[in-house]
Amino acid sequence: MTHINPYAWGLDKNSANFVALSPLSFLERTAHVHPQRTALVYGRLRQSWAETYARCRRLAGALAGRGIGAGDTVAVMLPNTPAMFEAHFGVPMCGAVLNTLNTRLDASVIAFMLAHGEAKVLLTDREFAGVIGPALATLGERRPLVIEVVDPSAPAGQQLGEIDYERFLAEGDPDHAWRLPADEWDAIALNYTSGTTGNPKGVVTHHRGAYLNSASNAIAWTLPEGSVYLWTLPMFHCNGWCFPWVMALTAGTSVCLRRVDPVRIYELIREHRVTHMCGAPIVYSLMISAPPELRAGIDQPIKGLVAGAAPPAAVIEGCEAAGIETTHVYGLTEVYGPSAICAKQPEWSALPVVERARLNSRQGVPYPLQQAVTVLDPLTMQPVPADGETIGEIMFRGNAVMKGYLKNPSATQEAFAGGWFHTGDLGVLHPDGYVKITDRSKDVIISGGENISSIEVEDALHHHPAVLSAAVVALPDAKWGEVPCAFVELKGGSIVSEPELIDFCRPLLARFKLPKQIVFGELPKTSTGKIQKYVLRERVRSSSAIE
Amino acid sequence: MTHINPYAWGLDKNSANFVALSPLSFLERTAHVHPQRTALVYGRLRQSWAETYARCRRLAGALAGRGIGAGDTVAVMLPNTPAMFEAHFGVPMCGAVLNTLNTRLDASVIAFMLAHGEAKVLLTDREFAGVIGPALATLGERRPLVIEVVDPSAPAGQQLGEIDYERFLAEGDPDHAWRLPADEWDAIALNYTSGTTGNPKGVVTHHRGAYLNSASNAIAWTLPEGSVYLWTLPMFHCNGWCFPWVMALTAGTSVCLRRVDPVRIYELIREHRVTHMCGAPIVYSLMISAPPELRAGIDQPIKGLVAGAAPPAAVIEGCEAAGIETTHVYGLTEVYGPSAICAKQPEWSALPVVERARLNSRQGVPYPLQQAVTVLDPLTMQPVPADGETIGEIMFRGNAVMKGYLKNPSATQEAFAGGWFHTGDLGVLHPDGYVKITDRSKDVIISGGENISSIEVEDALHHHPAVLSAAVVALPDAKWGEVPCAFVELKGGSIVSEPELIDFCRPLLARFKLPKQIVFGELPKTSTGKIQKYVLRERVRSSSAIE
Repeated sequence: MTHINPYAWGLDKNSANFVALSPLSFLERTAHVHPQRTALVYGRLRQSWAETYARCRRLAGALAGRGIGAGDTVAVMLPNTPAMFEAHFGVPMCGAVLNTLNTRLDASVIAFMLAHGEAKVLLTDREFAGVIGPALATLGERRPLVIEVVDPSAPAGQQLGEIDYERFLAEGDPDHAWRLPADEWDAIALNYTSGTTGNPKGVVTHHRGAYLNSASNAIAWTLPEGSVYLWTLPMFHCNGWCFPWVMALTAGTSVCLRRVDPVRIYELIREHRVTHMCGAPIVYSLMISAPPELRAGIDQPIKGLVAGAAPPAAVIEGCEAAGIETTHVYGLTEVYGPSAICAKQPEWSALPVVERARLNSRQGVPYPLQQAVTVLDPLTMQPVPADGETIGEIMFRGNAVMKGYLKNPSATQEAFAGGWFHTGDLGVLHPDGYVKITDRSKDVIISGGENISSIEVEDALHHHPAVLSAAVVALPDAKWGEVPCAFVELKGGSIVSEPELIDFCRPLLARFKLPKQIVFGELPKTSTGKIQKYVLRERVRSSSAIE
Repeated sequence: MTHINPYAWGLDKNSANFVALSPLSFLERTAHVHPQRTALVYGRLRQSWAETYARCRRLAGALAGRGIGAGDTVAVMLPNTPAMFEAHFGVPMCGAVLNTLNTRLDASVIAFMLAHGEAKVLLTDREFAGVIGPALATLGERRPLVIEVVDPSAPAGQQLGEIDYERFLAEGDPDHAWRLPADEWDAIALNYTSGTTGNPKGVVTHHRGAYLNSASNAIAWTLPEGSVYLWTLPMFHCNGWCFPWVMALTAGTSVCLRRVDPVRIYELIREHRVTHMCGAPIVYSLMISAPPELRAGIDQPIKGLVAGAAPPAAVIEGCEAAGIETTHVYGLTEVYGPSAICAKQPEWSALPVVERARLNSRQGVPYPLQQAVTVLDPLTMQPVPADGETIGEIMFRGNAVMKGYLKNPSATQEAFAGGWFHTGDLGVLHPDGYVKITDRSKDVIISGGENISSIEVEDALHHHPAVLSAAVVALPDAKWGEVPCAFVELKGGSIVSEPELIDFCRPLLARFKLPKQIVFGELPKTSTGKIQKYVLRERVRSSSAIE
């Protein structure tokens, strides 16, 4: 008898039971359910969800009125201000793709991004006029429509825009009949990664992934309705790890601030009773090393997501003492920011802080709605044994993975080889299934045929009490191929010599792993506090710096 | 210049960035992240997530070994036992569709469902042998493979299965290489609703919706990782409102129990430190009216979702006193259980309990990941004014809406007319945007969370030779919420007593469907002879008619 599948007919998709997944729906819902709750706080501004929705619709309508729609790029060069938040909704609401630019880049890189991304519109802030002006000058006919967000608290700077943001919004209708994307696979954002070699790559993300990773953030963090979220993390970073959309999903209040400054941070935490924040370990370091009197009057518990680097024990401990409960997450722009979590096991809480820090420093397990993160041998695409020792490449798979790199099919193909997203980070799998980074693949030093983890050498250096920060890169060597070269920033007032520091490492490292050279000085860092190893590598390559 | 969309090429789906949404992924993840945490508690059984995953894979493998796969139906007639929980994963893991049968139905209805759903396999428990035996007898060659779940704590009953569940599991491999559905739109479950007219309709739900409504439950309830969830809600009801999958998503512990009994409930709450539960108001009523000494030693806060009927003020108040924080949700089988929530506004907490009860009795707003619930005029499909007075039909739209009714395209088309799912419930829209039911779909009586079709009861009454005409409406009942109340007009010269007529119905109706009261007299009719049920409902409400 032929088997007829009774489920195969009469059960199709229609507009009642199928809607494109898009984080724009979160804004619509929260404006409906909690219209009067505060969405945005900035200086004296208090803006409700109803007002925020109306302004985002105005923005979408004004953009549409200027002919902007599906497949067009709208770039923004903005600090963490309300306009930046609104752009995360208003731009995709007209069908366009939001390209947030890293505000710490220089004119030539910004010009490359505007040209490569084919930005039709640019929202900017006068703080960045010194970079944007020269960048626009190189674009010629490809110059986008420039809209200036006027912020009285911005530092002085030249006015660049053809129109200011508020006048532009006035062109749009607060009831603009925006639509969800035709397809949830449509692009929502374009984020350039600072490639270590060659030009930056444009990571294209989609509505489906932004929706799911927003929900995943809410679930991973058990984020309650109505949290008060402080914007210590730049929104230009992977769209603030999806948090503009997460706040819309959970009706939270976004407390905006232009820059990370501990005094201002503590003022805002106290005044608005902030409950949640995100950032690199450096943000938390700044906070816990600030004078204790800044924390006076703050009694609410604060939860903080940490990523960008593993939080050291001192940061975890300092945060605990300061009433901040940190959770370590891991991700990249290509996976919408955090997409793995070092999920805490109940039994860890009884352990000493150093042991907790060791466990929490791991990259962990997939986010609740991410499919997989694991360590594979990139040649065989087989998982490495979960022995905490065998090194492979950390890879992701799931719906919170980018569409690909814009206009770069070969890089896209390479990134997705074998059906997984290759992070470029090397790691091991611990016996409990947790992923742990050992190194960026480009950070591995190969000396006499042996792999040396630069992180292992850095850890040894960090144990010395005079060391504030250390970064180790490969130094070309005629005999060994490469040897470890350390760049070390000392704590204020501390002194230690190169031979002393190398001797200090001897009991901690195999002999071939000892740094052959140590360079003292301030380390170059990214806007999020990550050490820019590529800068150090260039210095090593040009060699002048280390002679 | 032709506009070329730079996002239109080179950014396609692949196995790294696109995975079918399915709640089965939750089980795989939690078995990986929290293998040793307790998934299931039942009597003396403590079963970890690793064990549960292995058993579900065995079930999938054993079913596949028997030739069960995509498009096949596996029915279950089970109480809230571990096997029932496992079926929610093992059955769809082999590609099949899970059909949970309402254990309170009678043999003829069960036989209809098994035949209509074309069940190839049936899992059952000897408690239901008295219903399943006769149901199977009518199926002839369409008899499914019957697997008996042997539970020593089940009441006595005939053994019916060809094989017992544990022996069946042994046929499967604990490492069975199951796969996600080929398409997230594939059917995951079949749930029959007691239709108001004619035969039950088979609601077919899909993996995408089950995934999203599970996440929506977790977000709506801010459900923490590792909650302890007591199974007071039957899993046969809309798949326990998706909670087997929600527990897998959030690594919670499911405390199983065969029946709702306050003594047992409090024992389990105390012993396992239960934190969460779901149920109709009757469940909470039973709990709060139980002797206070049963609650001794219970100090953890408990959160409860309530649906099926609005929680009365006495229930909300009683729950508060008993340390249970209730949240009112609303939904139907067609929308995966709860899909709207009476989201609490912060300012409500200062109001008197009667006022809070009035506000919380409303059906509310869409669930976080549901697109929309509103009140439309079914003729024009336009929203009614938000005046709290204009009556329309409550309708849903979004991804947590069924595929349609199995083998019933006309009912499906009717349900989705105009691009919305028509609930059949009448309601109004309050000025704050909250939906409020004014009248349950006319013919349905909701008794202890169960839908009773008044037409079915009327049909039974009509079988009595003395009955000329019968109309059944809901009678408010302190314990059950509603019970069936029959108005009966006898044939001239005929005489029958209330107890006689109720006894007459016993073989025709499940016990909970029997009329609790019968009022004899002429029925009010329209000019065309239609019985005016609303007149009867008013009489019940004013209660004068039934004294």
